Amino acid sequence: MKSNIITISREFGSGGRLVGRKLAERLGYKYYDKNLLDEIAAEKGYSRQMMEEDEKRAKNSFLYSLTNAFGAAGYGPDTLSINEKFFIAQFEYITKLAKNGENCIIVGRCADYVLREFYNNTDIFIYAPYEAKAKRAVEEYGVAENEVEKMIEEVDKARENYYRYHTGRKWGQPSNYHLSINSGFIDIDSIVDMIIEFVERRNYKEGL
Amino acid sequence: MKSNIITISREFGSGGRLVGRKLAERLGYKYYDKNLLDEIAAEKGYSRQMMEEDEKRAKNSFLYSLTNAFGAAGYGPDTLSINEKFFIAQFEYITKLAKNGENCIIVGRCADYVLREFYNNTDIFIYAPYEAKAKRAVEEYGVAENEVEKMIEEVDKARENYYRYHTGRKWGQPSNYHLSINSGFIDIDSIVDMIIEFVERRNYKEGL
Repeated sequence: MKSNIITISREFGSGGRLVGRKLAERLGYKYYDKNLLDEIAAEKGYSRQMMEEDEKRAKNSFLYSLTNAFGAAGYGPDTLSINEKFFIAQFEYITKLAKNGENCIIVGRCADYVLREFYNNTDIFIYAPYEAKAKRAVEEYGVAENEVEKMIEEVDKARENYYRYHTGRKWGQPSNYHLSINSGFIDIDSIVDMIIEFVERRNYKEGL
Repeated sequence: MKSNIITISREFGSGGRLVGRKLAERLGYKYYDKNLLDEIAAEKGYSRQMMEEDEKRAKNSFLYSLTNAFGAAGYGPDTLSINEKFFIAQFEYITKLAKNGENCIIVGRCADYVLREFYNNTDIFIYAPYEAKAKRAVEEYGVAENEVEKMIEEVDKARENYYRYHTGRKWGQPSNYHLSINSGFIDIDSIVDMIIEFVERRNYKEGL
């Protein structure tokens, strides 16, 4: 088992976060999702609340949609918005985890892109048909039935825009990942088993 | 093990065809790729050679590129080209396999789309980074080194166009499949094991 980091990208309602949590438990790895912001806030002296609110605003902003339509934006020191500063702080934090060889699971955060030059990360995409996502969102996340369709659409659109803005790549494109699993047809524990098997048997010759 | 049919879609050089052959051996399933044309030729009295040549021509034709740019073409009895007639014959043959509950592996042929209303098929996409595909194409398929880049690009473009034309869907889009595996990082036998495990453990509640 050589993989130090397993990154999980996931559609809203696919159960990807649960896959990440169970992987962390099974492997004894540290688990990161939004809690990564806590670590960065503590390290850099940022406000965690401000980081989260800014990210949420940025994900839904006109700027992101615009970037999405015209290609990825470049950014230099002169044009660094607060959000970009936060993204770079995350970028640096995740890179440090990889350089230190820390064993961890990272859900979201564009971590697959951040670690594309590293060899010891395995990148997973979890998705599902709409019906399966809606069922999980209502039954397990407590989303109201009359809001679930809009919520799935908006959350995933925001993730796609955020990913495109910061990476220039298309979110969910298979070539970004080692393995993409449709969670609408198989239980979470089986998905965890499959990922562990993949990580144990894969080679580590190139970055992705 | 409930899956009667496993469909394999694959990038050129990814080893997807070999995955299909090994799956067929391991499971004792019948194997279909272009040999499906033989069966149809025999049944319908078509010339196998003509079918193959026509398919090749159609895949590279201006019509396909045009369709690709403007969306999928509909076709009625009046506009049926030879290629469309052949595609429909394949469509009907694959549907018959599924209705008869035949255990088989089908590589290519838009079989994932053809069987989208059936419950007992598992759809797999095999892809790989360019370097891994080029290496396999040169070393295992005997493609000349100075031709491999062009060949990979052209074959996969033709597959994408063919798929889009007949299905209106984007080839390689994760939502078309149950599982997408990057063969650049894991050996063929491990991929076969993973697919068998997925098929054994998945549920069969909905079509895809």
